[in-house]
Order: sequence, then structure tokens, then C-alpha cells
Amino acid sequence: MSDESEQELGITESKEHNTGEWYAEVVQKAELADYAPMGGFIVTRPRGYAIWERIKSALDGWFKETGVTNTYFPMFIPESYLEREKDIVEGFDPEVAWVTHGGHNELEERLAVRPTSESIIAPFMAQWTRSHRDLPMRLNQWCSVVRWEATETKPFFRTKEFLWQEGHTAHHDQEGAWEETMIRLDQYERVYEDVLAMPVLKGRKPDHDKFPGAHTTTTVEALMPDGKSVQGATSHYLGQSFAEAFDITYVDADENEQTAHTTSWGLSWRVMGALIMTHSDDQGLVLPPTLAEKQVVIVPIWQEENKDEVLSYAADVEAELAEAGVRVHLDDRDNRNPGFKYNEWELNGVPVRIEIGPNEVDEETVTFVHRPDGENVAAEFEGVGETAQEQLDTVYAKLYASAEETLDGEIREATSRNEILGTIGQHGGYVKCGWCGDEACEGEIKDQIAAEIVMVPLDRDEEPVHDECAICGDEATETAYFAKTY
Amino acid sequence: MSDESEQELGITESKEHNTGEWYAEVVQKAELADYAPMGGFIVTRPRGYAIWERIKSALDGWFKETGVTNTYFPMFIPESYLEREKDIVEGFDPEVAWVTHGGHNELEERLAVRPTSESIIAPFMAQWTRSHRDLPMRLNQWCSVVRWEATETKPFFRTKEFLWQEGHTAHHDQEGAWEETMIRLDQYERVYEDVLAMPVLKGRKPDHDKFPGAHTTTTVEALMPDGKSVQGATSHYLGQSFAEAFDITYVDADENEQTAHTTSWGLSWRVMGALIMTHSDDQGLVLPPTLAEKQVVIVPIWQEENKDEVLSYAADVEAELAEAGVRVHLDDRDNRNPGFKYNEWELNGVPVRIEIGPNEVDEETVTFVHRPDGENVAAEFEGVGETAQEQLDTVYAKLYASAEETLDGEIREATSRNEILGTIGQHGGYVKCGWCGDEACEGEIKDQIAAEIVMVPLDRDEEPVHDECAICGDEATETAYFAKTY
Repeated sequence: MSDESEQELGITESKEHNTGEWYAEVVQKAELADYAPMGGFIVTRPRGYAIWERIKSALDGWFKETGVTNTYFPMFIPESYLEREKDIVEGFDPEVAWVTHGGHNELEERLAVRPTSESIIAPFMAQWTRSHRDLPMRLNQWCSVVRWEATETKPFFRTKEFLWQEGHTAHHDQEGAWEETMIRLDQYERVYEDVLAMPVLKGRKPDHDKFPGAHTTTTVEALMPDGKSVQGATSHYLGQSFAEAFDITYVDADENEQTAHTTSWGLSWRVMGALIMTHSDDQGLVLPPTLAEKQVVIVPIWQEENKDEVLSYAADVEAELAEAGVRVHLDDRDNRNPGFKYNEWELNGVPVRIEIGPNEVDEETVTFVHRPDGENVAAEFEGVGETAQEQLDTVYAKLYASAEETLDGEIREATSRNEILGTIGQHGGYVKCGWCGDEACEGEIKDQIAAEIVMVPLDRDEEPVHDECAICGDEATETAYFAKTY
Repeated sequence: MSDESEQELGITESKEHNTGEWYAEVVQKAELADYAPMGGFIVTRPRGYAIWERIKSALDGWFKETGVTNTYFPMFIPESYLEREKDIVEGFDPEVAWVTHGGHNELEERLAVRPTSESIIAPFMAQWTRSHRDLPMRLNQWCSVVRWEATETKPFFRTKEFLWQEGHTAHHDQEGAWEETMIRLDQYERVYEDVLAMPVLKGRKPDHDKFPGAHTTTTVEALMPDGKSVQGATSHYLGQSFAEAFDITYVDADENEQTAHTTSWGLSWRVMGALIMTHSDDQGLVLPPTLAEKQVVIVPIWQEENKDEVLSYAADVEAELAEAGVRVHLDDRDNRNPGFKYNEWELNGVPVRIEIGPNEVDEETVTFVHRPDGENVAAEFEGVGETAQEQLDTVYAKLYASAEETLDGEIREATSRNEILGTIGQHGGYVKCGWCGDEACEGEIKDQIAAEIVMVPLDRDEEPVHDECAICGDEATETAYFAKTY
């Protein structure tokens, strides 16, 4: 790099050696987010928010296609409402932000800023559910929630306030509610695979680690390049516990009162943290074309004597791409040289660059450069819009394949306590092993290397991978996936 | 109506005689919103939220076409940040909700739940604005805000928490910022005219009623059927006051430091209140086709002997409409009679109903019924998709024309204090008159009949309608529009 501003612009930390610092630098220098004045809060900048909007738009479309309706419930929950969860959750003690004053007056009852909305939504579901014809009821909201956890801020991964969607549904019976739980889990898997270019593992949380009050918590887990697992989204089958506590009942076709079965499911902007962590590199942000505001940037390379020709040809290419539905930008800035532009657009994650110099003009060609690996592809002007779409598909496929290769290589088996410790200690990733189902066995691993059981197989009847619990040697009842987590 | 459930379903209050009660009934019975347990808060139900989503989608598209980028800033603002507005606003005393505790601990500094975000956005704009190339900067967020005003709850019109968008922009100079102010005001006018089927008046708030710290506050005002004016959205040219207080400066092309000019502009869900109030009637909700989730409902009328024929024909009509891009629903419920269905869909605001009985089947026709006025239109099956689109356009035009007629007839002139009082007292609506510019003259009217100056003409140089102030008789400097307000 040649001048001071380029050095300021670029990423200085190494993804491999200083993952945490590197991540924070990418987030700030690619202008995705900044730190707010209050610890634990961030400001999401236009480039970051545009990514969230695209994820939201995809998922929201699928939700609506499958019967979900959007709502907006108040951001405050009276303390007495929140406390009704005490009936469901032992040792309920919410770490929330409390509003105690309105204007100059102290409130009669404190209001919690919603940490999640079961306790305000469930009473309304109860009110709106009269007849079996009112079910299934599928409510969702896109909103922000606040959880007052005292941990270090990590944009999108760990923030006191975060954006998410929370779905809450009620059904006639267990079958309907379980089907709902799976539909949402599958949609979460799909958003990772088809929008984020990331494979995930689908599973179930061990019973001791379920969402409080849930019958079953299901999860999609994504492996990060540093070998840790991220809980990518969760979908809960709540059974009848919430319906009983909040009186969500209906009159069936035979005029009998029945208690509903409910679900809840959520995906937060943590998905953006997982995205950035997975694909980005020491040059900065890498985005799949699905999520990039600009999918292709054209960088013209000219001398004074051929400037007009080069720019005119570049504008033709831009028009062809726009015509083909590609989100394209022609960077014709006079005051920056091509090298500076390459670096800047690499930092900002534009998936494909087109280089156009006098040679390309003469030969009526263009040169595509793939952001993830720098591969060069020459192509004819003829049909360049279609070619660009193909290049974008190729980039998507490369990103997915790379993440998949990482994941496939990072699932290992172990048959003893020491093997679990050694394997995770040395390689990270997932270790699968037989498990007796006792939380204490997980505890032994957790105490030593802070790895935990991130999931067990969805199917409760699946045979364990080994006959014996790798930790205590008793009979294994299921397969545990151990990993370190975010 | 024939049975108890139909009576429960229907609207019982009169729009003309009990406007407030009628409005509350429409909101609840058409399932747009419910009252939350905390006074001042509402729950927005799927049918209400879907309207907000469509308004948001239209406006957000126009914002993006004109250079606006979306962001998300924290919902909390430290007290010390909020207090920086004291430099700008005399007697600054925010009526806000205060977060004082996080988990079990008292916070060192209280956090305000944002009542509006100038004081948290402006410092970041200052940080992000270095060079003239960083401007114009146009940030917007769709979020909820809280204002702790102790008034009676009126869904969408008056709630402590409300949904809105707030745009905040910075520009090189006055010209750029003023142009921005007008672009947004025009977009607000457009959303009323082209999406909500409501004409509005564009104007400027009197100087004593500007947004605190603004140079000029512009407004779109909508007239409600009870003769009161609603402030439909506002767009503020802030001059350099915020830029100076928050140090939003940039280095110009000649390397000189300059202070930016800023704007802010917002539209809230009050727009939904104005919509419901304007078009709905004693049968319930009336929606323009632009905002209706279902634009056309098909109600088949059958006897047992012709049920299959009628339903099959109705399904063909449904398919034709769907093909033509109409949002259509075939109500083939067995357990409800046509009369019940008519009432229910009228209550819910579906703009056009199609009735299909044995006659229509025989003659290969359909009968369209317009929600606003019950007009019947017979049409051929051939081309029914296109005909449906025409009927929807007609319904939109009817709604707009009706609102326009009301508005046109409700702007009257007055030349004396008593004439203002008498005209507003008798007719409501707007009274325009010469005004000297003195707040005290407005005060005399306000004290008597709670009417105020809702706007003056946008153009500061426009000649006043009369030479003398209608209240004090001194020289008039502008034209005042008096009205009662929501």
C-alpha cells in the first residue's frame, strides 16, 4: 500500500492469529457498525443494516408463505406479567433493563424492556383464541430486545440490545405444534444455506439446556473458522406449559375446552456475526452475492489518452449488467487510482470486480475477479450480463464449498474423556461421542476446557454413536456434540 | 342482523354522533389493535400491522430511490447526551421513560428510552463526516419511540410508544438541506395521495410552534371528518443549530472547515389513525385497495342443488383475478351464510366484493360491489381480472374524491376574531385569515375554542390573504390556517 490513508483503510489484524481483534476491525472498517457510548450497545451503520434487511426480507417472505402474520407488541412488560413466568421457570430471575420513571414521576409498577415477549404475547393469544377455528395462530414480530448481561461487547454476537424476530404460535395439538417447530427450524437452515452460504448442523439442545419452560429446544449450529460453534437460531416446542400458565384454551368441534400447544422461535442479528466471521479475510469483508448491496463493481483503468474510450466501454458494460438484474456500480472516481479502488471494494466485500483497461476495450472483453480467492476470468462483452450472473453463482458456490469443507473436516469422534479434551483442545470443532444423558458428565468437560454439549440429534430414538458414555462409561442414551461456543 | 354473534361482530357506535367511541370500536372489532395492560400502550394485531407494512414499504422504496440509507441506533440515550440539546432548546425538559436499573444494579447514568434520536445520531454524524465527499449523508431508521405524555390513549393517534421512521441528514449548504426538506415533505404528501387516498395541505408551522431547534418545520395536514386537523408528518430544516451543537463539520474542496446544514423528518403510525378516521363508516373499516391485505373477496351464494357449479365457477373467477395480480380471497365457508360474510368483510374493510350466485353462473357474469358506497356493477367473466383492477381503481378514486370534497368545502376565510370563533365553532375545518405573526393573537383563539394555527403557507414571501390580522387588526404578515387538532 502506498499512502497513509490506504493503511488506515486496510485491515491490520490477522484472522488466523488474532481472530477477535480482526473481527472487530472488519466490522468497523467495512462500516458495518460502531460502538455506542454505552457499553454493550452498537450503532448499525447503513452497510451493516442493509445486510440485515436482506436476511429479514428473505426469511419474512418464507414466514408469510407459510401462514405467519406480523404484529407489534409493546416494548415494555409490566413486572407482574414477567413474573408469571415464575410458574413455568424455576429460579426465574430476569436480567433486564428496568424502567422506573416516566417523566418526573416514579412508576407504580416497574416496566421491563422486553428480553423476549412470551409473557406479554401469551395473555393476548389466550384472549384471541376462542374456537378451534382461531387456530393455528402464528404471530411474529421483528423488533429489538434487551438483555442486561455483563459481558464484553462483540458486535452482532454479544450486545445488550439486539435485533431479532420472535415467532409465537398456538396449535390444536402436539402434532401441529411440532410440525411448526420443524418448519421454522428448516427455514432457519435454509436462510443459512441459501442466503448466507453457510452449512449448519440441525439438532436439539440437551434437556438441561433447553429454553426455560420448553418441552424441546431445537437449534441450528454453525461452525466458525476458529473452531467454535455458534447457536444460529432456535425453534422451541413449548408443549402445553405456556398454554396452561397463560390459559390459552379453545373450544373444539365437539364443544369441549382444550388446551393449546405452543411454539416460539427466533433468529437474531447474531446471524450477521456468523456471516462475517465465516467468509471474511485479512483483506476485509467477504459477502455472498445474495447479501451484497453492490454485487459487481467495475473498475476502469485508463491513461489520459484513452480515458473517454475506457469509460464509455465501462458504462456499456454497466448498462448490460444492470439490464440483467445485477446490482452493479461503476467506480469512475478521478481522484483514486485503481489499486486504491481494488483495496476499498475488497474491504467492503463486493463479491465480483470487473477490470476494464484499454486491452479489454480493444478486444471487447472484460476481466472478472472473484473476491474470495482472487481468481481471474476473462469473458466476451457479448452476453456479459449473463456471464456476470454465472460468476456471482460461482462465487456463492465457492463460499459455500469452503465453509462446508471446514465443517466436514471438523466433526470428530471420541470415546473417552481425555480424547474429547485433547481433540477439542488441539483442533476445536465438534466432537461427537456417546453420552449417558447426565449433566454432570458435560460438567467435567466444561470445567476443563469450556466446551459444552451444543446439540444432540433431533431424533430422540436415534442410536447413540457409541454404546458407552465417553465420560463416565455408563450406558450411552444419545450422541452428544461437544464444542466451544460463542 | 340475525344472531348474537353478528351483533357482537358489528359496529354499534355512530361515526357522526360519537366519533371517538366509533373510532375505538372500529380499531378493536376490525382487529387492528388492542389495548395493552399499561395505559398508553397498544398491541398492533396482524391486520393493523399489515397496513403499516404496506405504508412503510411504499415510503421506504421512495426513500431509497432518493439516496436514503437505513440504520439502527440504540433505543437508549444516556442522560448526558440528551442534555446536550439544552444548548439548542430553551427549557428543555424531556418527558421520557427512564431506565435506572440493569438486572439488580442501579446504573451509574440513567438511560432515556429514545423519544427521538437527534441526540444520539448527531454525534455519530459528526464522527462520520470528515470530507465534503461524505456529504450528503442521509440516515433513516424505522423504529419505535416513547414519549411519556399523560393523555388518554387513542390507538395510533395518541400512544406513549409509537412506531415511526425518523430521517436525519447532513448537507454541504442551506440549499441542499432545504431541497432535502422539500423532497421528504413531497414524499409524505405522495404517500397520503397515492397510497392512503387522502388529500393533504402542505405548509409550515408558525415559528413559535416549530420543532425545538429547527429553523423551519414543514407539515402535511389532513382534515378529519369531524372537522379537526391531523398533523400528518413533519419535515424539518434544522439550519446549522444541531450541526454547531454536535460539531458536524467537514473539510471542503478548498481544505476549509465548514459546518454542515441538517434536516430531520418523520412519519408515525398516526397516519393509520388518519386513514381509519377518514374512510371508515358505521359498517366498519374501509381501506383503499393499495393497503388492503385482501382487495377482493368472492362470496358465493348457493343452494345444495347448485353448490358444486357455483363453487367451481367462483374458483375460476378467483384464478382469473389472482392471475391478474389482484389479492383475492374466495370465502367458501360452509358454516356462514352470505349475509354474515358480507357483514364480516365489510367490517374488515375489503374494498370490493364479488357476489356469485346461480344467475351469474348461467350468464357467465359476476357482480362487483364497492365497499365505500355499496354500488353494484355487473360484468362479464371474459376479462374479469382486468375489470377487477378497474373496479379497484374506481374505489380508490371514490375514496380520494370523497375526502377531497370534504377538504375543499372546509377551508373558509374570516376577517375577524368572532368570525374565526363562529366559523370553527359551527363548521370545524380550516379558517384562513390574515395574521400579524404574534403568538398572542393565536392565544386568544386557543383559549376560547382550542383551535390553533396548524400552518402558514410554505412560501414565506406569499402575500397574506387579507391585509389585516383578523384578531388584532395590525398589519398581516402572513396567512394563518386555524383549526382544531388531534
